Amino acid sequence: MSDFQNTIRILIASDIHAGYGEGKKIIDEDSFIGLEETLKHATEQDVDFILLGGDLFHESVPSRYTEHKVISLLRKYCLSDREIAIEMISDPQEVFENNHFKLVNYEDPNINVGMPIFSIHGNHDDFSGKGLMALDILHDAGLVNLFGKFNNVDNIVVKPILLRKGDAKVALYGIGSQRDDRLQRAFHAGKVKFCFPEDVDDWFNILVVHQNRPPRSLTRTTGSFLPLSVLPSQMNLIIWGHEHKCEIEPQFFPKGTGNEKDGFFIIQPGSTVATSICADETSAKHVSVLEIKGVTFKTQPIPLQQTRQIIVEDLDLAKVNPKPRIVKLKARTKDMEDERLIHEKLQEMLENAKQYRGAQQPNLPRMRLRVIYSGDWLKIPPVNCRVIGHKYDGKVANPSDIVSVKTIRPDDVDEKGVRKVTASDGTTVHDLLKQSFTDNDIESGLGVLSLSKMQHYVDVSTKLDESKKKKLEMLDNTINEQIAEYKAKISKVSLRSVCFLS
Amino acid sequence: MSDFQNTIRILIASDIHAGYGEGKKIIDEDSFIGLEETLKHATEQDVDFILLGGDLFHESVPSRYTEHKVISLLRKYCLSDREIAIEMISDPQEVFENNHFKLVNYEDPNINVGMPIFSIHGNHDDFSGKGLMALDILHDAGLVNLFGKFNNVDNIVVKPILLRKGDAKVALYGIGSQRDDRLQRAFHAGKVKFCFPEDVDDWFNILVVHQNRPPRSLTRTTGSFLPLSVLPSQMNLIIWGHEHKCEIEPQFFPKGTGNEKDGFFIIQPGSTVATSICADETSAKHVSVLEIKGVTFKTQPIPLQQTRQIIVEDLDLAKVNPKPRIVKLKARTKDMEDERLIHEKLQEMLENAKQYRGAQQPNLPRMRLRVIYSGDWLKIPPVNCRVIGHKYDGKVANPSDIVSVKTIRPDDVDEKGVRKVTASDGTTVHDLLKQSFTDNDIESGLGVLSLSKMQHYVDVSTKLDESKKKKLEMLDNTINEQIAEYKAKISKVSLRSVCFLS
Repeated sequence: MSDFQNTIRILIASDIHAGYGEGKKIIDEDSFIGLEETLKHATEQDVDFILLGGDLFHESVPSRYTEHKVISLLRKYCLSDREIAIEMISDPQEVFENNHFKLVNYEDPNINVGMPIFSIHGNHDDFSGKGLMALDILHDAGLVNLFGKFNNVDNIVVKPILLRKGDAKVALYGIGSQRDDRLQRAFHAGKVKFCFPEDVDDWFNILVVHQNRPPRSLTRTTGSFLPLSVLPSQMNLIIWGHEHKCEIEPQFFPKGTGNEKDGFFIIQPGSTVATSICADETSAKHVSVLEIKGVTFKTQPIPLQQTRQIIVEDLDLAKVNPKPRIVKLKARTKDMEDERLIHEKLQEMLENAKQYRGAQQPNLPRMRLRVIYSGDWLKIPPVNCRVIGHKYDGKVANPSDIVSVKTIRPDDVDEKGVRKVTASDGTTVHDLLKQSFTDNDIESGLGVLSLSKMQHYVDVSTKLDESKKKKLEMLDNTINEQIAEYKAKISKVSLRSVCFLS
Repeated sequence: MSDFQNTIRILIASDIHAGYGEGKKIIDEDSFIGLEETLKHATEQDVDFILLGGDLFHESVPSRYTEHKVISLLRKYCLSDREIAIEMISDPQEVFENNHFKLVNYEDPNINVGMPIFSIHGNHDDFSGKGLMALDILHDAGLVNLFGKFNNVDNIVVKPILLRKGDAKVALYGIGSQRDDRLQRAFHAGKVKFCFPEDVDDWFNILVVHQNRPPRSLTRTTGSFLPLSVLPSQMNLIIWGHEHKCEIEPQFFPKGTGNEKDGFFIIQPGSTVATSICADETSAKHVSVLEIKGVTFKTQPIPLQQTRQIIVEDLDLAKVNPKPRIVKLKARTKDMEDERLIHEKLQEMLENAKQYRGAQQPNLPRMRLRVIYSGDWLKIPPVNCRVIGHKYDGKVANPSDIVSVKTIRPDDVDEKGVRKVTASDGTTVHDLLKQSFTDNDIESGLGVLSLSKMQHYVDVSTKLDESKKKKLEMLDNTINEQIAEYKAKISKVSLRSVCFLS
């Protein structure tokens, strides 16, 4: 047999977040462009299958438009009379025991699958109610093979999908997204079991997970995560979904046993669309072709050509000009120094974007300039971000939030002059709120504050130099205002507008 | 060629309402049972295709479970290597011009469709936002052929699906559900055009619509409808969806031109699941096999074996006993005469149900006994329907609403002693509200009153002998109560329960 016939080739991608940006101007199709480019690369690279690390959908209940787009793209690219060279050895009844259709889609004689997709679910694909998620619909429709689905995190038995092509043998293990703390506990309590084939060392073992990775820096303080130490050393490779930063080159992690071979590689594909404008999302987006011969592998990262540019920079005013000629002012006046510096910097960013823009990248980049006010710059009120942003209409994809403001007062810095880490350095308000609530809270739909009001509160309160108590009072006020607003809305509703809430 | 090769056989059904009863006890799977039985009959009868009259889904946004059930059943029954004997003559790009995939599913080489389904959409499949409905997802997934979809009711050009099998030629015309008044106006203004084939008389022309039918009785006062007079006389047969009463035998409607042949037949398949407990839904549910040879046809109605029994009866207390021995009472006492009569009647209904229950019908029927209080019976307060109902737990599928109460006071009867028709005779509160609001009202989601509160108001207010003004005051109170309830709810919400409304 030729080399080709003994090599399994897999396109690896993750966090496609189809439907991200829906309803926003300009970027609303970006996620679908990312999905389509991924599918195109798989076709062009003629891989045996696609392996996804979760969060194919951005929302757990995708809109009809998103569902329609995804189904349409999958039908277009995955159904064909192309021959499938991999053979599934394991019992599909076992591997897909928690799915309705307990078979791999390309073995259904009624659907011509030319490009199989295997995917675990991510946190955005969360299932509720009767244990079904949006990915189940795709699995049921024969467009995706959903694996790593468990009904009970306290009893996870991971049965591999065993795939063979000539001499090459790949075992795919998957654990769909779980709450990090619960999964960690389950691992420690021995409630996660892996069914390894008897000749496990003859297989190339791939585990796909969708969890927080252990923190690697001070600014990454997400709390719970999946520790590498609990992952079985039989694995050759971990595909790590959920983390959006693209770390497409395989990284080796020894298990600390002294044996050099005792460990595994990790590939973190990152997302195919940036779902926030932050440093982690600025690195070029990639998918990768993984080639497996025996128990050796190599990868060929493929940069995505069509993803929108993201440029994130800081402008520390005190560093540019430590002694500005300004007087203490309560209100801003025209043509102030900081505004000039900001526009200069934005112009520079725009020019950089233009220079490095690929032929297939959209014209309007997403940009974020964080302007830092400290020292003498604290004498004046910071710029109005929206006013600045308006001048970049038609130049960037996100004029309304192109600039953000950060003020650093003396008590934000420790005795060594090192800035204390605050939540705004790494996470968004959305992240913080999400962490604070259980899924039940969110599903139960109790709601007073909209995210935008909450964001407004944070925007305003962080700019003010108030005590904690004052800030809490402000929060109370924000809540009360919104309650009053709702009350006013309700009392204004006329009988004409009555409709069915039952 | 044999007779069989020159005969097109179609299974006709409508208003499957998949997902009806979701969340209710006992009947929650009834709609899926109706769908599955329909699909089974089509397979057993070996028809060329299935033709549906709309409302495949009960909700315009079906739940994930419902979507999953429908996709699973369609994949199970419609995908197979069974050969398709019909040939599509018309240009699919034209027929499916408003769909994403502009082809008939069985001509997609990548999907083995063994049983094609053609369907128009119903009012429950209403599309919103980007012009997509739940049926579009099924069309995109290659499981259904959605036709009769128009983006603008003021410019409807109906292009037929031309199907041939040997000598038999069928032209399928479809108009998905439109608001009756608008469609009627569009017809009168000449804004609905039909593209007939040149040799139209050589084709068997079928029009599928999903509208209100012209009123046929005093109690049917739904207002606007689609008049038969506007429908083109080239049609041989109309399949009429939306009306749930099963009128499976073809009825001939002459056009009043004096020419006996100038007219068409109508088949009204009715629903495959009863979505309300009323007289129209009590007749046995059917699908029908339509056989077409040349321009002649015959039908073979097939009663559905698995639909749940529905029994609706009246108990007019004054007719059973015009002179009961009762004294005027403000509160009910134990073992009153009316209660005894009600239980006797319900027992009789239960026994009838048992006697006539088919082998495949579920054990628990849905029953409704309307108890009429008039004459001397008005001296006592009517029975509490829920208390009566509790005694039929485990005996019927709907104990909580097995009994309804109607009081007839002297001023409800006209001078000839004929009872005046009230809304409660034909329509439900839900229908009335739906008629009062435009789709925009409902979509905009403004809401104060829940349907259950509204129902409660109607239940209570119709029992009381109050003036119109008093009743309006009561409505005001009902609304204010609900507003107060919402206010109380909102003010009780703690910060812990804040979640995202944006």
